[in-house]
Amino acid sequence: MIKANDPNRKSWIDVSKDSDFPIQNIPFGIYKKEGAQGAVATRIGDTVIDLSVLSRLGYFDHLNLEDTSVFEKCRLNDFIGLGKKQTNAVRDALADIFDSANTKAASDSDLKGQAFYKADDVEMLMPVEVGDYTDFYSSKEHATNVGTMFRDPDNALLPNWKHIPVGYHGRSSSIVVSGTPIHRPKGQTLPKDANKPVFGPTKLLDFELEMAFVTGKQTRLGDSIRTAEAEEYIFGLVLFNDLSARDIQKWEYVPLGPFLAKSFGSPISPWVVTLEAFEPFRVEGPKQEPEVLPYLKFDGKKSYDIDLEVAIQPEKAEATTVCNSNFKYMYWNMSQQLTHQSVNGCNINVGDMYASGTISGPDKGSFGSMLELTWRGQNPVKMADGTERKFIHDHDTIIMRGHSKNANTRIGFGEVKTKILPAKED
Amino acid sequence: MIKANDPNRKSWIDVSKDSDFPIQNIPFGIYKKEGAQGAVATRIGDTVIDLSVLSRLGYFDHLNLEDTSVFEKCRLNDFIGLGKKQTNAVRDALADIFDSANTKAASDSDLKGQAFYKADDVEMLMPVEVGDYTDFYSSKEHATNVGTMFRDPDNALLPNWKHIPVGYHGRSSSIVVSGTPIHRPKGQTLPKDANKPVFGPTKLLDFELEMAFVTGKQTRLGDSIRTAEAEEYIFGLVLFNDLSARDIQKWEYVPLGPFLAKSFGSPISPWVVTLEAFEPFRVEGPKQEPEVLPYLKFDGKKSYDIDLEVAIQPEKAEATTVCNSNFKYMYWNMSQQLTHQSVNGCNINVGDMYASGTISGPDKGSFGSMLELTWRGQNPVKMADGTERKFIHDHDTIIMRGHSKNANTRIGFGEVKTKILPAKED
Repeated sequence: MIKANDPNRKSWIDVSKDSDFPIQNIPFGIYKKEGAQGAVATRIGDTVIDLSVLSRLGYFDHLNLEDTSVFEKCRLNDFIGLGKKQTNAVRDALADIFDSANTKAASDSDLKGQAFYKADDVEMLMPVEVGDYTDFYSSKEHATNVGTMFRDPDNALLPNWKHIPVGYHGRSSSIVVSGTPIHRPKGQTLPKDANKPVFGPTKLLDFELEMAFVTGKQTRLGDSIRTAEAEEYIFGLVLFNDLSARDIQKWEYVPLGPFLAKSFGSPISPWVVTLEAFEPFRVEGPKQEPEVLPYLKFDGKKSYDIDLEVAIQPEKAEATTVCNSNFKYMYWNMSQQLTHQSVNGCNINVGDMYASGTISGPDKGSFGSMLELTWRGQNPVKMADGTERKFIHDHDTIIMRGHSKNANTRIGFGEVKTKILPAKED
Repeated sequence: MIKANDPNRKSWIDVSKDSDFPIQNIPFGIYKKEGAQGAVATRIGDTVIDLSVLSRLGYFDHLNLEDTSVFEKCRLNDFIGLGKKQTNAVRDALADIFDSANTKAASDSDLKGQAFYKADDVEMLMPVEVGDYTDFYSSKEHATNVGTMFRDPDNALLPNWKHIPVGYHGRSSSIVVSGTPIHRPKGQTLPKDANKPVFGPTKLLDFELEMAFVTGKQTRLGDSIRTAEAEEYIFGLVLFNDLSARDIQKWEYVPLGPFLAKSFGSPISPWVVTLEAFEPFRVEGPKQEPEVLPYLKFDGKKSYDIDLEVAIQPEKAEATTVCNSNFKYMYWNMSQQLTHQSVNGCNINVGDMYASGTISGPDKGSFGSMLELTWRGQNPVKMADGTERKFIHDHDTIIMRGHSKNANTRIGFGEVKTKILPAKED
């Protein structure tokens, strides 16, 4: 068992029972206090802990890290780039520092005085500088729903879908951290029965419930990653809201794929939860039939049981949960995705982001987008405040949450929260 | 007129008559001498000039640049980030330093002794750290050829093509500098009449003759660029070889666009030629009918007359020119591309790369890919050594060149040269 994952461990920092951040989690992120630059942090309960301070206080001295300036940076890339051996050692060390048995640390007034912040008092920044970003399309239920609505219900899945972890390159620059408001995008759409497009704000703004993994190890151009070693390249996970403008997408996407329909803002959760933290939550994935090509075969449990939910909060009203799904529904797992990404020799960098595609489950309440939940707007979702939603309205806030849970431990991401503002004036 | 563009200027550095790098060019790149890191350089004739040395010798002191450490970097991003006012001032200053009238500089033995290298003696590195990379699809002739071959000859152009500068996000990590050898990629393909894919090296390896522009100014998420201001955001241009595996592409690209077929290596020319250097070569673009939406309208000449050619050199044999095209054939110009890219609020960064898509002209000899030149292999190209090519063979070297020329001046890129190596063993 990974040391930091010990379910019997308790922390001398208060952690409420339903917290996503017990001492078994120890995620990494970038926090910012007023008037300062960002620095690397972790979170236990509602306490954000500045790791650059811990490093200066000597708490990592015994680890002989290659470079301790990584904690002072305002993105995690250099920290992640130390490699799993060192980042896991930091995670284990943090578990020891904050273990309730560590009375010495618990009574270190410098530690608490200089490194501790209330989560509500700090701003969280983008955790990584995203190099390349790929969006996969790995939920069979989602691909089937979309294929049924837009193409052919009898052949909803395209012929390549069960052979290829289908994906496309996405826009990195517009990936933003939770809390960043996003303006309703403008673009070209083709009105029904028209033969010429019009320009204006999207009428069909949607979320897509996704997870994304961040790579922690690079490859050289020409090299490939095997499924058996793929997890060595996966540093951790975030929640990913692949905001989409359905009407823009429909008009633009043939033949080269989605473009402006998805590049106006893609919010992620601020805490990168390590793959190691999810070790207790490995599960078998869906059976893959027909058999995949040899390079995509894998051994063992490569899927993860992570509950996911989406809520919509109208302005000044209560939020309504509209979707409950789970990461384990993914037909293609992360190891297969990364292996496929690199099988042509495409090089992987530290800080790349690989999103899952919309995570829809088998039943209607588990569909991961408004497009599917309302079946193109035919069945509006009822909200707690009495209003209805076919798609997302201006001033709505979209909230995604995710966590794994067993009898002992709950490991989660907190949330990714995004308010939609009206389209900007010309 | 831009000072550095003065066609009457001559340099005290030797420049042969057919050089792409007269004193009117002054491109920017990153050179590397043995045992050292890279630094910012320009080139006049066959002389590569280290700008970090010029800066240390005081040649830019009068410009009061915001930051002179930019010349010491091994990518151009920070230099470009100074903004056009300062980078154009550097270009003008270089024109004055190397003007034949500048006898003081010409007799400065420190300058020549410390800053000058023969082009053949240095290695050129990637000029920029590419943030996001977009590949457009802006040649009507190319889109028509592809549509005719793969879809419907009677409706070769898709309905959106004349309304949208169609494009898709590409992979940044695998953009490499000229001279980088590329292994034939492996991947999934669907053999003719088969119902299951196979895995192996591509059989249909192709080039795509493209140009790409590098952005030099950022926007914030939510902001858009108008066509009238778009050129302020364009720092300069490179040649771009969008290597493609046609059989992999065919099997993977529906519905989300090209992915592994184009992410195994995309070579570019090492010198970024400024947009300003091409000022004398502005031309009208093709007439756009039907009329484009208002946000895509523009005034003035936004196309550029740049001759382009592709040659294939079999191992130990003479090269054969297989294509002569021109950048002016592009239906959509760069200003329209960048305006479209940002119309949804997508943010632009310094060092992003925006490729044109394959630049095919109206006649067969101007088609910008083997796919089109051989019409899917039906009409092989005859080579000078007596062999034929349907697509690219192992050990072939693909050479692209580009330059503008008028009675006074020739402004060019040099070349982008890429040797194809056999697929790697498993």
